[in-house]
Amino acid sequence: MAGNTFGQVFRVTTWGESHGTAVGATIDGCPPGLTLTAEMIQQDMDRRRPGTGGAASPRKEPDKVEILSGIYQDTTTGTPISLIIYNKDAHSKSYDHLREIFRPGHGDFTYLKKYGIRDHRGGGRASARETAARVAAGAVARRLLLCDNIKVVAMTVALGGIVAGQRNMAHIAENRLFCPDNEAAALMEERIRKVREQHDTLGGLVEIIAQGCPAGLGEPVFNKLDAELAGALMSIGAVKGVEIGSGFAAAAGTGSKNNDPILPTGFASNNSGGILAGISNGDDIVARVAVKPIPSIAGEQQTVNLANEPVTIKIGGRHDISAIPRIIPVCEAMVCLVLADHLLRQRAIQQVPKRS
Amino acid sequence: MAGNTFGQVFRVTTWGESHGTAVGATIDGCPPGLTLTAEMIQQDMDRRRPGTGGAASPRKEPDKVEILSGIYQDTTTGTPISLIIYNKDAHSKSYDHLREIFRPGHGDFTYLKKYGIRDHRGGGRASARETAARVAAGAVARRLLLCDNIKVVAMTVALGGIVAGQRNMAHIAENRLFCPDNEAAALMEERIRKVREQHDTLGGLVEIIAQGCPAGLGEPVFNKLDAELAGALMSIGAVKGVEIGSGFAAAAGTGSKNNDPILPTGFASNNSGGILAGISNGDDIVARVAVKPIPSIAGEQQTVNLANEPVTIKIGGRHDISAIPRIIPVCEAMVCLVLADHLLRQRAIQQVPKRS
Amino acid sequence: MAGNTFGQVFRVTTWGESHGTAVGATIDGCPPGLTLTAEMIQQDMDRRRPGTGGAASPRKEPDKVEILSGIYQDTTTGTPISLIIYNKDAHSKSYDHLREIFRPGHGDFTYLKKYGIRDHRGGGRASARETAARVAAGAVARRLLLCDNIKVVAMTVALGGIVAGQRNMAHIAENRLFCPDNEAAALMEERIRKVREQHDTLGGLVEIIAQGCPAGLGEPVFNKLDAELAGALMSIGAVKGVEIGSGFAAAAGTGSKNNDPILPTGFASNNSGGILAGISNGDDIVARVAVKPIPSIAGEQQTVNLANEPVTIKIGGRHDISAIPRIIPVCEAMVCLVLADHLLRQRAIQQVPKRS
Amino acid sequence: MAGNTFGQVFRVTTWGESHGTAVGATIDGCPPGLTLTAEMIQQDMDRRRPGTGGAASPRKEPDKVEILSGIYQDTTTGTPISLIIYNKDAHSKSYDHLREIFRPGHGDFTYLKKYGIRDHRGGGRASARETAARVAAGAVARRLLLCDNIKVVAMTVALGGIVAGQRNMAHIAENRLFCPDNEAAALMEERIRKVREQHDTLGGLVEIIAQGCPAGLGEPVFNKLDAELAGALMSIGAVKGVEIGSGFAAAAGTGSKNNDPILPTGFASNNSGGILAGISNGDDIVARVAVKPIPSIAGEQQTVNLANEPVTIKIGGRHDISAIPRIIPVCEAMVCLVLADHLLRQRAIQQVPKRS
Repeated sequence: MAGNTFGQVFRVTTWGESHGTAVGATIDGCPPGLTLTAEMIQQDMDRRRPGTGGAASPRKEPDKVEILSGIYQDTTTGTPISLIIYNKDAHSKSYDHLREIFRPGHGDFTYLKKYGIRDHRGGGRASARETAARVAAGAVARRLLLCDNIKVVAMTVALGGIVAGQRNMAHIAENRLFCPDNEAAALMEERIRKVREQHDTLGGLVEIIAQGCPAGLGEPVFNKLDAELAGALMSIGAVKGVEIGSGFAAAAGTGSKNNDPILPTGFASNNSGGILAGISNGDDIVARVAVKPIPSIAGEQQTVNLANEPVTIKIGGRHDISAIPRIIPVCEAMVCLVLADHLLRQRAIQQVPKRS
Repeated sequence: MAGNTFGQVFRVTTWGESHGTAVGATIDGCPPGLTLTAEMIQQDMDRRRPGTGGAASPRKEPDKVEILSGIYQDTTTGTPISLIIYNKDAHSKSYDHLREIFRPGHGDFTYLKKYGIRDHRGGGRASARETAARVAAGAVARRLLLCDNIKVVAMTVALGGIVAGQRNMAHIAENRLFCPDNEAAALMEERIRKVREQHDTLGGLVEIIAQGCPAGLGEPVFNKLDAELAGALMSIGAVKGVEIGSGFAAAAGTGSKNNDPILPTGFASNNSGGILAGISNGDDIVARVAVKPIPSIAGEQQTVNLANEPVTIKIGGRHDISAIPRIIPVCEAMVCLVLADHLLRQRAIQQVPKRS
Repeated sequence: MAGNTFGQVFRVTTWGESHGTAVGATIDGCPPGLTLTAEMIQQDMDRRRPGTGGAASPRKEPDKVEILSGIYQDTTTGTPISLIIYNKDAHSKSYDHLREIFRPGHGDFTYLKKYGIRDHRGGGRASARETAARVAAGAVARRLLLCDNIKVVAMTVALGGIVAGQRNMAHIAENRLFCPDNEAAALMEERIRKVREQHDTLGGLVEIIAQGCPAGLGEPVFNKLDAELAGALMSIGAVKGVEIGSGFAAAAGTGSKNNDPILPTGFASNNSGGILAGISNGDDIVARVAVKPIPSIAGEQQTVNLANEPVTIKIGGRHDISAIPRIIPVCEAMVCLVLADHLLRQRAIQQVPKRS
Repeated sequence: MAGNTFGQVFRVTTWGESHGTAVGATIDGCPPGLTLTAEMIQQDMDRRRPGTGGAASPRKEPDKVEILSGIYQDTTTGTPISLIIYNKDAHSKSYDHLREIFRPGHGDFTYLKKYGIRDHRGGGRASARETAARVAAGAVARRLLLCDNIKVVAMTVALGGIVAGQRNMAHIAENRLFCPDNEAAALMEERIRKVREQHDTLGGLVEIIAQGCPAGLGEPVFNKLDAELAGALMSIGAVKGVEIGSGFAAAAGTGSKNNDPILPTGFASNNSGGILAGISNGDDIVARVAVKPIPSIAGEQQTVNLANEPVTIKIGGRHDISAIPRIIPVCEAMVCLVLADHLLRQRAIQQVPKRS
């Protein structure tokens, strides 16, 4: 209801503010018998950490995850898994001057309108720091998917107008932007440098691919797999658009071109993005998201204060130039959460065995 | 869980197959005291009906909705509202030859993979006919929104590559494609005629605008208003992409351009699409969806049969050239359902009154 | 949220008022492949029908159930199953004099307080007629349970102070009160006749036993199997108490007596009622409910009208002397719904297979 | 789904094992603007703490609750409230001999059957320690209820066969058993002493009264207020029965006696326990639960080990003689959680204002 829980069977509830004591996640519905250690989760955490990647802010958080419950001898027991990540490097003071001002492009205005009160320090719950808990929970989902050989990988396919010209999976680990095209990545880094000097910020496109997903996942008609992916990805702060398979390009095409012919060996193309009528078809699942330029720009902006008087601000604090690349593991986490949930949901309603 | 229920407080469950007895919806959570008659719902039904609009199929369904419960003296009582629309013009015979074949771009393959059984007649539950129940339920949500002066309108902004050059709201009612640009609409109709001759089909773009929505709707972090809209719209069969406000265009821009300055009189622009940090900001809510060309093309296609042998098919039956314009009221319905649900959700967690 | 949906995986939504067009249920989450016909459901419907059983009212409803969706060739397809039962013998006129009066022991007062409006005819949604939809949905759940050889049977173990002295399962089908003690049943019938002459009504006790339930069902900590059974059974209008196994008797006993010793052959006793720590232990599940005397008595009662003026009423209409025996199939239905739901829920979170 | 979440709007998820790092609760859906400090919650925690009350175990837990999120300047912000209680005095060693043995009356057997793995130390998640998190969350619910002047109090009305002869609210705070009859309390203490010597344990009855609850709470038909209370209370480990108002006594009575006459000044009696047709009627809400003798008895018991061989055990560790009185604040917490949830739910579906 209040929006901090995700999933039906594999169910995650996150909590915590940017400048509070900690952020965390509780997973209810993880099957028992899964091997799980804090180190396994930490691997995903480390990819999201502030201070890694060329567009990153200088805030230094160790982002050390602890498992507080649900594990016995490095194995899940079927009881709730509580994960906690303490906040260490919060500089709340640097937000004092924002107590009275609404930052453009941020949730300051809407949080106050909705709740009548807001924790202005670092964006409170609206901060990207909240996604640390998503990544932690997503790492557990990823472990579950790996038991079924399902792999989820996200990559930067455009940044600041520079588009990746290829999908070379080997390149993803070779540059700081998780870009499947090392040459494009170099241009993107150049673009970031330039824009940083201009006190501005950049958006981009992230593509997420899930490989090895069996046919049959997704629950028509409202919880179709593409619908759930869209909702999950759009719930990430910086995301303003989601498309599946041929996506927006399909809108301008014809049926004869967009349909994927079916051969005895499988689908001849993948315009569907691996999803037909909301159900996975066994092909790669492909989603793409539009990431807006992060709104915390160093340049001067026009806004109002609590008294609705016009003021100008320059945003200090420690901020990234782009949500990319730190959003990459967050996108992966959300897709992992959706797939793990649907994998388990499908088990619940498997076909009744025939009885004589 | 199984996916046929939508919403948390204003909660709709739909049921029914294309060629079954009927389709229907049950609404649980509609507040009492709302004036409601079958005629009010019928207005929306009539806009979705087969046989209206230039791209429409010749299937003739009266789509007459009946209210079976939840109403006393034309007023909602707070108990479940059961809506039923009987199927009248189902020609199941014409689907007999599809019993053994998977149509490309359809759910035939995935439904069988998922359930191990499928009602092949007219697509069964995967048919666009299912959306009749959505429109009926959406019409009730619309009545609720109108009590708060919230209006939802969808329009065709591109079809077959032809893009509407303006947003003239008066035009929407003046052409069969609900296009806010009469000239573009004429070109679109022309395009449809041509493609029909080519035995092909077309996709397009639909924009949905909600006016009068108060600030404060949306539940961070997973049930953000944009996340819920994205999931709701992507759950419509033909939709392959969703964007909010500046959407995919934002990905290529900069923060200084994409941020909406705040003035004492309101937001200076609306790149946010009326949603900041997942919460409505009081501005118009603007979403856009990519509608794929409908997959039932008359031309020959390559596919396989149940024995996984290669076959070719030409799809008969009665089909539209484009999901547009019949998808227009469906898009409106989904947005109405999301907004009505969040309007009620917000009431539940309104601020605690200060006590001395 | 609004309360008309039951279950998590096997999910039922009911609708309909006593004197409306129909009552019905939609089941979402029934696995595909289950053999199901209207006749199978009708068997349970017929046991609940008005006019059967010694304590029954003279209202004659055929209670003919129709399946509107979710079935193909007498087999469930995994899509929603819509069930409808039309109301035929509603005499709304006889309720006209109750429009202005609150009947003691009924929901008249509370429905008006809650909703600000009420359908006074026959109790509207608060009528026992609502349970027809529960029995229909429960019959589908029962079919699912039978695939796993789980059987649910309810019986009258006390009525009007007369207590069944034995649990002879063969007797249950031999008397109109579903009593496992034919001699007690005869005394109960005698008691009913007497109380009918006194214009009064009677309560009693119903025991429900589920046989063949595997160990492992129930979801700690809030959705324990006993918690869900208690909630399900207490949701039946006339029920004012629920106990599991030794129940209230346990409160006065000692641990050494109440614990069930465990032998290599199984539990030596069943004070637990087949549930330990909220999870089924493989033994018979045993629940007992207290059924209050139905409040529609023919004798004079003191109450108030809408203007809060004191008035006296004698309730006309067609009413039973006791909710027993018609409540028997309703109790079975609710237990079937709980067990079917938990059977499927357990499948979703089954242990992860060990991988090398 | 997996059972560790309670409530719809005021939604609590608990986690943690008896001998793990900590137990905790996350509340999602608490309205903003509520004054809340850790000290306020601690008051309820202190009443549940081990080592208080005559029947208590010698385990000494400070049960210090911390608030990790959702609060800004001692006020709720509408974001999730994360509560944590670290385990300090866990003696896991003393459970080593139970690794291979199923304790009668405990969840050892069923947890292993369900999950295939169990944390045997101190009962893991099945331990009464889990209720610490319920009490913490319930304390927040209680704060919310107090804003509407709703008060919830539980009391011991029977223990070991000794029944409280009166309901003197002043007495509740005057004896360690929270008994509304000081004389009965003295006898109960005497009985506890005796049974402790006999290495046995005792059950009893707890009555919970909610005062000041407005008419209109409860969601027919499955989420009736009495159904939700029954489910909530039965979810407490030791509870084997729940009754509302006249409860089981009603089963033996007649309608003329059990109906509560309505006077212009209110209900003349309260056999309904404040709930009619599942909706609160404005009178005191009265529920009673049967608490079984705690199964950890010091005397010798017959059971089996993991190899299903017969063995005998005497249970060591540190255990109470009765779940009473420590269960008292737990019962209050569950009732507070139900009422807070329904208070908020009712706000969501309040009557639509009439428009001209």
